[in-house]
Amino acid sequence: MEQLIQRIATDGQVLSDHVLKVDSFLNHQMDPKLMKGIGDEFTKHFREKKITKILTLESSGIAPAIMTALNLEVPLVFARKKKSLTLKENLFVSQVHSFTKQETYDITISKDFLFAHDHVLIIDDFLANGQAALGLMDIIQQANASLVGIGIVIEKGFQEGGRMLRDKEIDLHSLAIIKSLQNGQIHFS
Amino acid sequence: MEQLIQRIATDGQVLSDHVLKVDSFLNHQMDPKLMKGIGDEFTKHFREKKITKILTLESSGIAPAIMTALNLEVPLVFARKKKSLTLKENLFVSQVHSFTKQETYDITISKDFLFAHDHVLIIDDFLANGQAALGLMDIIQQANASLVGIGIVIEKGFQEGGRMLRDKEIDLHSLAIIKSLQNGQIHFS
Repeated sequence: MEQLIQRIATDGQVLSDHVLKVDSFLNHQMDPKLMKGIGDEFTKHFREKKITKILTLESSGIAPAIMTALNLEVPLVFARKKKSLTLKENLFVSQVHSFTKQETYDITISKDFLFAHDHVLIIDDFLANGQAALGLMDIIQQANASLVGIGIVIEKGFQEGGRMLRDKEIDLHSLAIIKSLQNGQIHFS
Repeated sequence: MEQLIQRIATDGQVLSDHVLKVDSFLNHQMDPKLMKGIGDEFTKHFREKKITKILTLESSGIAPAIMTALNLEVPLVFARKKKSLTLKENLFVSQVHSFTKQETYDITISKDFLFAHDHVLIIDDFLANGQAALGLMDIIQQANASLVGIGIVIEKGFQEGGRMLRDKEIDLHSLAIIKSLQNGQIHFS
Protein backbone atom coordinates (compact mmCIF):
# COMPACT_ATOMS: atom_id res chain seq x y z
CA MET A 1 0.00 0.00 0.00
CA GLU A 2 1.91 2.94 -1.37
CA GLN A 3 0.44 5.64 0.90
CA LEU A 4 1.31 3.59 4.00
CA ILE A 5 4.84 2.79 2.83
CA GLN A 6 5.47 6.48 2.13
CA ARG A 7 4.21 7.38 5.59
CA ILE A 8 6.41 4.79 7.29
CA ALA A 9 9.41 6.02 5.27
CA THR A 10 8.69 9.64 6.27
CA ASP A 11 7.53 9.32 9.89
CA GLY A 12 8.73 5.93 11.13
CA GLN A 13 11.54 6.05 13.68
CA VAL A 14 14.04 3.23 13.82
CA LEU A 15 14.86 2.65 17.50
CA SER A 16 17.01 -0.44 16.94
CA ASP A 17 17.58 -3.18 14.38
CA HIS A 18 14.20 -4.65 15.26
CA VAL A 19 12.11 -1.82 16.76
CA LEU A 20 10.21 0.57 14.51
CA LYS A 21 8.22 3.34 16.17
CA VAL A 22 5.17 4.57 14.28
CA ASP A 23 3.56 6.43 17.15
CA SER A 24 2.82 9.50 15.05
CA PHE A 25 0.18 7.86 12.84
CA LEU A 26 -0.66 4.33 14.07
CA ASN A 27 0.24 3.39 17.65
CA HIS A 28 -0.48 6.49 19.73
CA GLN A 29 -1.48 9.36 17.48
CA MET A 30 -3.63 8.02 14.66
CA ASP A 31 -4.23 9.47 11.22
CA PRO A 32 -7.93 8.77 10.59
CA LYS A 33 -7.68 9.11 6.77
CA LEU A 34 -4.84 6.60 6.71
CA MET A 35 -6.87 4.28 8.97
CA LYS A 36 -9.77 4.58 6.50
CA GLY A 37 -7.39 3.84 3.60
CA ILE A 38 -6.06 0.79 5.43
CA GLY A 39 -9.62 -0.40 6.05
CA ASP A 40 -10.36 0.03 2.32
CA GLU A 41 -7.29 -2.04 1.39
CA PHE A 42 -8.23 -4.90 3.70
CA THR A 43 -11.78 -4.75 2.34
CA LYS A 44 -10.55 -5.05 -1.25
CA HIS A 45 -8.49 -8.12 -0.40
CA PHE A 46 -10.99 -9.94 1.82
CA ARG A 47 -14.40 -8.86 0.55
CA GLU A 48 -15.27 -12.13 -1.24
CA LYS A 49 -14.52 -14.24 1.81
CA LYS A 50 -17.94 -14.29 3.49
CA ILE A 51 -16.52 -12.86 6.71
CA THR A 52 -18.95 -12.70 9.64
CA LYS A 53 -16.69 -11.20 12.30
CA ILE A 54 -13.43 -9.29 12.69
CA LEU A 55 -11.12 -9.96 15.63
CA THR A 56 -8.36 -7.67 16.82
CA LEU A 57 -6.35 -6.95 19.96
CA GLU A 58 -6.55 -3.76 21.99
CA SER A 59 -5.48 -1.03 21.45
CA SER A 60 -3.72 -0.18 18.18
CA GLY A 61 -5.60 -2.78 16.16
CA ILE A 62 -8.98 -1.19 16.85
CA ALA A 63 -8.84 1.76 14.42
CA PRO A 64 -7.83 -0.19 11.28
CA ALA A 65 -10.21 -3.00 12.29
CA ILE A 66 -13.26 -0.79 12.83
CA MET A 67 -12.77 0.83 9.40
CA THR A 68 -12.63 -2.64 7.80
CA ALA A 69 -15.66 -3.78 9.80
CA LEU A 70 -17.63 -0.75 8.64
CA ASN A 71 -16.94 -1.61 5.00
CA LEU A 72 -17.65 -5.33 5.40
CA GLU A 73 -20.74 -4.66 7.57
CA VAL A 74 -19.72 -7.11 10.29
CA PRO A 75 -19.12 -6.69 14.03
CA LEU A 76 -15.63 -6.15 15.43
CA VAL A 77 -14.57 -7.89 18.63
CA PHE A 78 -11.38 -6.77 20.32
CA ALA A 79 -9.54 -9.15 22.63
CA ARG A 80 -8.67 -7.63 25.98
CA LYS A 81 -5.19 -7.90 27.39
CA LYS A 82 -6.33 -8.32 30.96
CA LYS A 83 -9.47 -9.51 32.60
CA SER A 84 -11.95 -6.80 33.50
CA LEU A 85 -14.34 -6.71 36.42
CA THR A 86 -17.47 -7.22 34.32
CA LEU A 87 -15.94 -10.11 32.36
CA LYS A 88 -14.81 -12.67 34.90
CA GLU A 89 -16.30 -15.86 33.54
CA ASN A 90 -17.55 -17.17 30.24
CA LEU A 91 -14.27 -16.34 28.52
CA PHE A 92 -12.02 -17.77 25.85
CA VAL A 93 -8.48 -17.23 27.13
CA SER A 94 -5.11 -17.60 25.46
CA GLN A 95 -1.57 -16.56 26.34
CA VAL A 96 0.58 -14.22 24.27
CA HIS A 97 4.27 -13.60 24.80
CA SER A 98 5.55 -10.19 23.78
CA PHE A 99 9.25 -10.25 22.91
CA THR A 100 9.29 -6.43 22.77
CA LYS A 101 7.90 -6.04 26.28
CA GLN A 102 9.41 -9.29 27.61
CA GLU A 103 6.15 -10.37 29.22
CA THR A 104 3.41 -12.94 28.80
CA TYR A 105 -0.17 -11.76 29.14
CA ASP A 106 -3.62 -13.26 28.82
CA ILE A 107 -5.89 -12.27 25.98
CA THR A 108 -9.58 -12.85 26.51
CA ILE A 109 -12.74 -12.83 24.42
CA SER A 110 -16.21 -13.35 25.80
CA LYS A 111 -17.92 -16.57 24.71
CA ASP A 112 -20.95 -14.39 23.95
CA PHE A 113 -19.32 -12.98 20.82
CA LEU A 114 -17.60 -15.82 18.97
CA PHE A 115 -19.39 -18.90 17.66
CA ALA A 116 -18.77 -22.07 15.68
CA HIS A 117 -20.53 -20.60 12.63
CA ASP A 118 -18.25 -17.50 12.53
CA HIS A 119 -15.87 -16.86 9.62
CA VAL A 120 -13.26 -14.67 11.22
CA LEU A 121 -10.82 -12.13 9.82
CA ILE A 122 -7.99 -11.15 12.19
CA ILE A 123 -6.69 -7.58 11.85
CA ASP A 124 -3.65 -6.30 13.73
CA ASP A 125 -1.27 -3.36 13.52
CA PHE A 126 2.03 -5.30 13.65
CA LEU A 127 3.24 -8.78 12.84
CA ALA A 128 6.64 -9.71 14.26
CA ASN A 129 7.00 -13.17 15.81
CA GLY A 130 3.33 -13.91 15.28
CA GLN A 131 2.57 -14.54 18.94
CA ALA A 132 -0.51 -12.29 19.04
CA ALA A 133 -1.87 -13.90 15.86
CA LEU A 134 -1.31 -17.38 17.34
CA GLY A 135 -3.19 -16.33 20.49
CA LEU A 136 -6.16 -15.08 18.48
CA MET A 137 -6.07 -18.21 16.28
CA ASP A 138 -6.08 -20.35 19.43
CA ILE A 139 -9.24 -18.56 20.60
CA ILE A 140 -10.88 -19.02 17.17
CA GLN A 141 -10.10 -22.74 17.46
CA GLN A 142 -11.50 -22.90 21.02
CA ALA A 143 -14.75 -21.45 19.60
CA ASN A 144 -14.70 -23.96 16.71
CA ALA A 145 -14.94 -20.95 14.41
CA SER A 146 -13.13 -20.67 11.05
CA LEU A 147 -10.17 -18.41 10.34
CA VAL A 148 -10.62 -16.73 6.96
CA GLY A 149 -7.47 -14.65 6.85
CA ILE A 150 -5.18 -12.20 8.63
CA GLY A 151 -4.73 -8.54 7.71
CA ILE A 152 -1.62 -6.84 9.05
CA VAL A 153 -0.73 -3.17 8.73
CA ILE A 154 3.05 -3.54 9.14
CA GLU A 155 4.88 -6.87 8.92
CA LYS A 156 8.44 -7.12 10.14
CA GLY A 157 9.57 -9.39 7.34
CA PHE A 158 12.87 -10.10 9.09
CA GLN A 159 11.10 -11.79 12.00
CA GLU A 160 9.52 -15.20 11.76
CA GLY A 161 5.77 -14.50 12.11
CA GLY A 162 5.03 -13.99 8.41
CA ARG A 163 6.80 -17.14 7.26
CA MET A 164 5.26 -19.19 10.06
CA LEU A 165 1.71 -18.08 9.12
CA ARG A 166 2.25 -18.49 5.34
CA ASP A 167 3.62 -21.98 6.00
CA LYS A 168 0.23 -22.79 7.52
CA GLU A 169 -1.35 -21.64 4.20
CA ILE A 170 -3.16 -18.80 5.90
CA ASP A 171 -4.29 -15.94 3.67
CA LEU A 172 -1.98 -13.33 5.23
CA HIS A 173 -2.24 -9.86 3.73
CA SER A 174 0.37 -7.37 4.99
CA LEU A 175 0.06 -3.82 3.68
CA ALA A 176 3.72 -2.98 4.28
CA ILE A 177 6.54 -5.46 4.78
CA ILE A 178 9.77 -4.25 6.34
CA LYS A 179 12.77 -6.16 5.05
CA SER A 180 15.32 -4.66 7.41
CA LEU A 181 15.87 -1.88 9.96
CA GLN A 182 19.64 -2.24 10.00
CA ASN A 183 21.84 0.83 10.42
CA GLY A 184 18.83 2.99 11.21
CA GLN A 185 17.45 2.58 7.66
CA ILE A 186 14.00 1.27 6.75
CA HIS A 187 14.10 -1.12 3.81
CA PHE A 188 10.84 -2.49 2.42
CA SER A 189 10.32 -5.85 0.71
CA MET B 1 -29.31 10.01 19.92
CA GLU B 2 -32.32 7.81 19.29
CA GLN B 3 -30.52 4.89 17.60
CA LEU B 4 -28.08 4.62 20.53
CA ILE B 5 -30.80 4.86 23.19
CA GLN B 6 -32.77 2.10 21.45
CA ARG B 7 -29.67 -0.07 21.34
CA ILE B 8 -28.92 0.45 25.03
CA ALA B 9 -32.54 -0.34 25.89
CA THR B 10 -32.44 -3.54 23.81
CA ASP B 11 -28.92 -4.86 24.46
CA GLY B 12 -27.68 -3.17 27.65
CA GLN B 13 -27.42 -5.43 30.68
CA VAL B 14 -27.96 -3.98 34.12
CA LEU B 15 -25.48 -5.70 36.45
CA SER B 16 -26.24 -3.56 39.50
CA ASP B 17 -27.73 -0.18 40.42
CA HIS B 18 -24.67 1.51 38.94
CA VAL B 19 -23.13 -0.93 36.45
CA LEU B 20 -24.43 -1.10 32.88
CA LYS B 21 -22.80 -3.62 30.54
CA VAL B 22 -22.82 -2.70 26.86
CA ASP B 23 -20.25 -5.25 25.75
CA SER B 24 -22.29 -6.38 22.76
CA PHE B 25 -21.95 -3.13 20.79
CA LEU B 26 -19.49 -0.73 22.48
CA ASN B 27 -17.03 -2.13 25.03
CA HIS B 28 -15.94 -5.48 23.64
CA GLN B 29 -17.90 -6.29 20.52
CA MET B 30 -18.40 -3.10 18.50
CA ASP B 31 -21.09 -2.28 15.97
CA PRO B 32 -19.20 -0.31 13.29
CA LYS B 33 -22.33 1.36 11.86
CA LEU B 34 -23.30 2.57 15.32
CA MET B 35 -19.74 3.82 15.87
CA LYS B 36 -20.01 5.73 12.57
CA GLY B 37 -23.38 7.17 13.65
CA ILE B 38 -21.87 8.25 16.98
CA GLY B 39 -18.99 9.92 15.14
CA ASP B 40 -21.50 11.74 12.93
CA GLU B 41 -23.42 13.01 15.99
CA PHE B 42 -20.27 14.34 17.68
CA THR B 43 -19.27 15.95 14.39
CA LYS B 44 -22.64 17.74 14.12
CA HIS B 45 -22.29 19.15 17.62
CA PHE B 46 -18.62 20.15 17.53
CA ARG B 47 -17.92 20.95 13.88
CA GLU B 48 -17.83 24.75 14.28
CA LYS B 49 -15.34 24.60 17.14
CA LYS B 50 -12.05 24.74 15.20
CA ILE B 51 -10.85 21.50 16.73
CA THR B 52 -7.24 20.52 15.93
CA LYS B 53 -7.00 17.26 17.86
CA ILE B 54 -9.14 14.58 19.48
CA LEU B 55 -8.07 12.89 22.69
CA THR B 56 -9.43 9.63 24.03
CA LEU B 57 -8.43 6.82 26.36
CA GLU B 58 -7.70 3.25 25.31
CA SER B 59 -9.54 1.05 24.46
CA SER B 60 -13.29 1.60 24.12
CA GLY B 61 -12.95 5.30 23.30
CA ILE B 62 -10.93 4.64 20.15
CA ALA B 63 -13.71 3.53 17.77
CA PRO B 64 -16.12 6.45 18.37
CA ALA B 65 -13.16 8.85 18.44
CA ILE B 66 -11.61 7.68 15.14
CA MET B 67 -14.97 8.07 13.38
CA THR B 68 -15.25 11.63 14.69
CA ALA B 69 -11.63 12.37 13.78
CA LEU B 70 -12.25 11.12 10.22
CA ASN B 71 -15.16 13.55 9.82
CA LEU B 72 -13.36 16.50 11.41
CA GLU B 73 -10.12 15.74 9.54
CA VAL B 74 -7.93 15.96 12.64
CA PRO B 75 -5.57 13.46 14.30
CA LEU B 76 -6.69 11.28 17.19
CA VAL B 77 -4.37 10.66 20.14
CA PHE B 78 -5.28 7.94 22.60
CA ALA B 79 -3.92 8.09 26.14
CA ARG B 80 -2.33 4.87 27.27
CA LYS B 81 -3.23 3.33 30.59
CA LYS B 82 0.26 2.09 31.33
CA LYS B 83 3.69 3.08 30.22
CA SER B 84 5.03 1.20 27.26
CA LEU B 85 8.59 0.26 26.49
CA THR B 86 9.05 2.67 23.60
CA LEU B 87 7.49 5.60 25.51
CA LYS B 88 9.46 5.94 28.70
CA GLU B 89 10.25 9.65 28.74
CA ASN B 90 8.86 12.78 27.19
CA LEU B 91 5.39 12.09 28.60
CA PHE B 92 2.48 13.98 30.04
CA VAL B 93 1.23 11.84 32.93
CA SER B 94 -1.91 12.05 35.06
CA GLN B 95 -3.60 9.71 37.51
CA VAL B 96 -7.09 8.32 37.13
CA HIS B 97 -9.03 6.47 39.80
CA SER B 98 -11.55 3.92 38.57
CA PHE B 99 -14.37 3.36 41.07
CA THR B 100 -15.60 0.37 39.03
CA LYS B 101 -12.25 -1.39 39.09
CA GLN B 102 -11.17 0.04 42.46
CA GLU B 103 -7.74 1.00 41.19
CA THR B 104 -5.70 4.07 40.32
CA TYR B 105 -3.70 4.00 37.10
CA ASP B 106 -1.48 6.37 35.16
CA ILE B 107 -2.60 7.74 31.84
CA THR B 108 0.12 9.01 29.54
CA ILE B 109 0.37 11.00 26.34
CA SER B 110 3.61 11.69 24.50
CA LYS B 111 4.71 15.33 24.49
CA ASP B 112 5.27 14.89 20.75
CA PHE B 113 1.53 14.93 20.05
CA LEU B 114 -0.06 17.67 22.16
CA PHE B 115 0.89 21.35 21.93
CA ALA B 116 -0.06 24.75 23.33
CA HIS B 117 -1.78 25.68 20.05
CA ASP B 118 -4.06 22.62 20.11
CA HIS B 119 -7.85 22.95 20.46
CA VAL B 120 -8.79 19.60 21.89
CA LEU B 121 -12.01 17.61 21.86
CA ILE B 122 -12.16 14.75 24.39
CA ILE B 123 -14.21 11.71 23.36
CA ASP B 124 -14.93 8.81 25.71
CA ASP B 125 -17.33 5.89 25.89
CA PHE B 126 -18.59 6.39 29.46
CA LEU B 127 -18.91 9.26 31.91
CA ALA B 128 -19.55 8.26 35.52
CA ASN B 129 -17.57 10.08 38.20
CA GLY B 130 -15.61 12.04 35.63
CA GLN B 131 -12.21 10.83 36.77
CA ALA B 132 -10.99 9.87 33.27
CA ALA B 133 -12.15 13.23 31.90
CA LEU B 134 -10.33 15.06 34.71
CA GLY B 135 -7.15 13.11 33.94
CA LEU B 136 -7.32 14.02 30.26
CA MET B 137 -8.11 17.66 31.14
CA ASP B 138 -5.10 17.72 33.45
CA ILE B 139 -2.89 16.58 30.57
CA ILE B 140 -4.40 19.23 28.26
CA GLN B 141 -3.55 21.82 30.93
CA GLN B 142 0.00 20.48 31.30
CA ALA B 143 0.41 21.02 27.54
CA ASN B 144 -1.10 24.53 27.81
CA ALA B 145 -3.57 23.42 25.14
CA SER B 146 -7.25 24.43 25.10
CA LEU B 147 -10.17 22.16 25.87
CA VAL B 148 -12.96 22.74 23.36
CA GLY B 149 -15.50 20.21 24.63
CA ILE B 150 -16.19 16.67 25.73
CA GLY B 151 -18.21 14.11 23.79
CA ILE B 152 -19.51 11.13 25.76
CA VAL B 153 -21.33 8.12 24.35
CA ILE B 154 -23.12 7.10 27.59
CA GLU B 155 -23.38 9.33 30.65
CA LYS B 156 -24.47 7.85 33.95
CA GLY B 157 -26.59 10.82 34.96
CA PHE B 158 -26.98 9.50 38.50
CA GLN B 159 -23.26 9.82 39.15
CA GLU B 160 -21.51 13.12 39.67
CA GLY B 161 -19.27 13.48 36.59
CA GLY B 162 -21.78 15.23 34.34
CA ARG B 163 -22.77 17.86 36.92
CA MET B 164 -19.14 18.44 37.88
CA LEU B 165 -18.13 19.09 34.25
CA ARG B 166 -21.18 21.25 33.44
CA ASP B 167 -20.47 23.30 36.59
CA LYS B 168 -17.11 24.11 35.00
CA GLU B 169 -19.05 25.42 31.95
CA ILE B 170 -17.51 22.77 29.71
CA ASP B 171 -19.38 21.99 26.49
CA LEU B 172 -20.30 18.43 27.45
CA HIS B 173 -22.29 16.53 24.85
CA SER B 174 -23.58 13.11 25.98
CA LEU B 175 -25.43 11.07 23.38
CA ALA B 176 -27.37 9.02 25.94
CA ILE B 177 -27.91 9.91 29.59
CA ILE B 178 -28.96 7.18 32.00
CA LYS B 179 -31.12 8.51 34.80
CA SER B 180 -31.26 5.33 36.83
CA LEU B 181 -30.47 1.62 36.76
CA GLN B 182 -32.52 0.77 39.82
CA ASN B 183 -34.41 -2.53 40.01
CA GLY B 184 -32.66 -3.78 36.90
CA GLN B 185 -34.42 -1.20 34.72
CA ILE B 186 -32.72 1.33 32.43
CA HIS B 187 -34.32 4.77 32.66
CA PHE B 188 -33.06 7.55 30.37
CA SER B 189 -33.08 11.28 31.10
